[in-house]
Amino acid sequence: MSAIEIPEGSLFGLDNLPYGVFAARGGPPRAGVRVADSVIDLAAALRDEVFAAPKLNPFMAEGPARWAAARARITELITAGDVPAGAVHPLRDVELRLPFEVADYVDFYASEHHASNLGRLFRPNAEPLTPNWKHLPVGYHGRAGTVVVSGTDIIRPTGQRKGPDDPVPVFGPSIRLDIEAELGFVIGAGSALGTPVPASGFADHVFGAVLVNDWSARDLQAWEYIPLGPHLGKSFATSISPWVVPLAALQAARVPLPGQDPPPLPYLRETEDWGLDIDLAVEWNGEVVSRPPYKSMYWSPAQMLAHMTVNGASTRTGDLFASGTISGPDRAQRGAFIELTWGGTEPVTVKGEPRAFLHDGDTVTITATAPGAGRARIGFGEVTATIFPARP
Amino acid sequence: MSAIEIPEGSLFGLDNLPYGVFAARGGPPRAGVRVADSVIDLAAALRDEVFAAPKLNPFMAEGPARWAAARARITELITAGDVPAGAVHPLRDVELRLPFEVADYVDFYASEHHASNLGRLFRPNAEPLTPNWKHLPVGYHGRAGTVVVSGTDIIRPTGQRKGPDDPVPVFGPSIRLDIEAELGFVIGAGSALGTPVPASGFADHVFGAVLVNDWSARDLQAWEYIPLGPHLGKSFATSISPWVVPLAALQAARVPLPGQDPPPLPYLRETEDWGLDIDLAVEWNGEVVSRPPYKSMYWSPAQMLAHMTVNGASTRTGDLFASGTISGPDRAQRGAFIELTWGGTEPVTVKGEPRAFLHDGDTVTITATAPGAGRARIGFGEVTATIFPARP
Repeated sequence: MSAIEIPEGSLFGLDNLPYGVFAARGGPPRAGVRVADSVIDLAAALRDEVFAAPKLNPFMAEGPARWAAARARITELITAGDVPAGAVHPLRDVELRLPFEVADYVDFYASEHHASNLGRLFRPNAEPLTPNWKHLPVGYHGRAGTVVVSGTDIIRPTGQRKGPDDPVPVFGPSIRLDIEAELGFVIGAGSALGTPVPASGFADHVFGAVLVNDWSARDLQAWEYIPLGPHLGKSFATSISPWVVPLAALQAARVPLPGQDPPPLPYLRETEDWGLDIDLAVEWNGEVVSRPPYKSMYWSPAQMLAHMTVNGASTRTGDLFASGTISGPDRAQRGAFIELTWGGTEPVTVKGEPRAFLHDGDTVTITATAPGAGRARIGFGEVTATIFPARP
Repeated sequence: MSAIEIPEGSLFGLDNLPYGVFAARGGPPRAGVRVADSVIDLAAALRDEVFAAPKLNPFMAEGPARWAAARARITELITAGDVPAGAVHPLRDVELRLPFEVADYVDFYASEHHASNLGRLFRPNAEPLTPNWKHLPVGYHGRAGTVVVSGTDIIRPTGQRKGPDDPVPVFGPSIRLDIEAELGFVIGAGSALGTPVPASGFADHVFGAVLVNDWSARDLQAWEYIPLGPHLGKSFATSISPWVVPLAALQAARVPLPGQDPPPLPYLRETEDWGLDIDLAVEWNGEVVSRPPYKSMYWSPAQMLAHMTVNGASTRTGDLFASGTISGPDRAQRGAFIELTWGGTEPVTVKGEPRAFLHDGDTVTITATAPGAGRARIGFGEVTATIFPARP
């Protein structure tokens, strides 16, 4: 048996216990829980084969009662110092994998500050927010097959762009490669075709949350996105953090939304608060350039799920829906570089250099913390990646 | 051994041999091939466990050499009358299932006639085609989890709409429920992240084609789609035909595209003709109301795949990419009711009644044929479904 030491101030104490998929040296990928700087092999510790799968999907599909039972049992084992010694791996000795197989991926656009900023930048002659924006959480489907785990190299995408002064489109590597700092929500227990999930059903279906970096080639996106929305400008890669923070760990982070005016239609009304007081930080080559506050988001994830299914669309285990870029009211709270640098016209200083969009070799790391038990905080770990040159 | 009789004029002769997934009375779902009005159980006939899977994905993943070998062997067995009797089921005795697990679903917009018509209807004060339309195949991601097999009931979707005279959005069942008659292409052998598939690589990756009905709630779509594209107006259901016609069966249907002006960028240039001379027919409650000609499409499926991956996006076995609505130059060739009835202002007569959008109880069936060997034709079967009332 092994006692896992949890240092004072650890972001991965008993009030967190996020799930991931790890491979220990030479071993197959399987489910684990992070505690302090250790990973507990759940198949070994709980003697349950559902955790021996190479993805969290089978466990996530079991639903909230099983999630609660597993969390209670893990807590009990750690507290009692009863985790079998062979089930504990130092974090530094394991490889972290994509934690779940992504079924469908939907990306929302739920920050009023972000949507207003992008409206001003993309459509300078129109109202910043489209007429529908305060009536429904605008969102669209992204590419599930190119969701990758933190640490995966990002190859600069190639494609078409056409600036206002180009007579014809130009083909080549993107010259306006950007990030979007987001939070993503993962469906555990799916819902049937024809059966909407009400806002009150959020916790019956959603397993947990991850950090998302929705890489965006702004030049490709600007040329392609009218009339059917973003495609190639986004589909080359979306990075997620390796740890899925369960909803149970986010109870202390729940706060009311900042306020919705006009009041949304009844199917979108919140029955419980699912605003979330989560603080993100965006590091560009190791320097923090932005601190997006999730609590400033206009639409809650419960509203996103209610909207996504109100037409009868089913959900499946592994569906990922992300918030869209998180931007607060202040400049230093903007979660995308196009906003932070106002379309590149107001560069930020990174390691002493003025910078707007991403260069090859740049590394971006997004981290987040939230209130935990008492005065403690919990962490989401990080989603990080480095940009590699476009392939010739 | 069993000799399968193929009547003169059958659309399912040896030049077709489409793949599907069937369940015989009491049996598990497994792969089959359709010949005339029979289904051959491939696991039993070829003694190959890859066909015992409940989806075509494992076989599709094996790639073009294996697809060719299986087709040759099946042809040989049928020609020689050597199909084991127990491996042959009358079509009427089996249930047809979703033939493959859909990984990502992308819907293009490749008909110039359709895009122009919709531009005129949705954006009457602007140029019908957006500036990008002739430079790239416009497309977007749809919901993979709500792709259903022909015969699955379609429940009328509920959601928000807002007409020009409505002061605020109205919530309720869609009142402009429509179809989109399309052809869909299925990836068999996937491609790696960071590695574009050139137009010349089409047949190395694409396994075959299906008929698609991309149900569309026009009122939901019109209100939601700016700026990120269609979402709820499409995501409630997309129907596909149960038979996947392999690319090998489409050789006689290959024709040059109608012509592209301006010439596309080099990565989009066709090295071989992948225009397809496929004739569709749309039946509304049993009456043919439209005959969309696939050969009128502006962009080829090889160009769609080249575009979809030029940014480095990977593809996976089971990815489905559809053409978008197929509309020819004539009114009676339009593949969506919103075009056929010009936004509902020019109803068509169905069973003696003027009709514009779908009523509860309506059935829509899309069929298609293409040139086969010699003077014969091959069939795609059908994608059919009936509309059920919105859930209260």
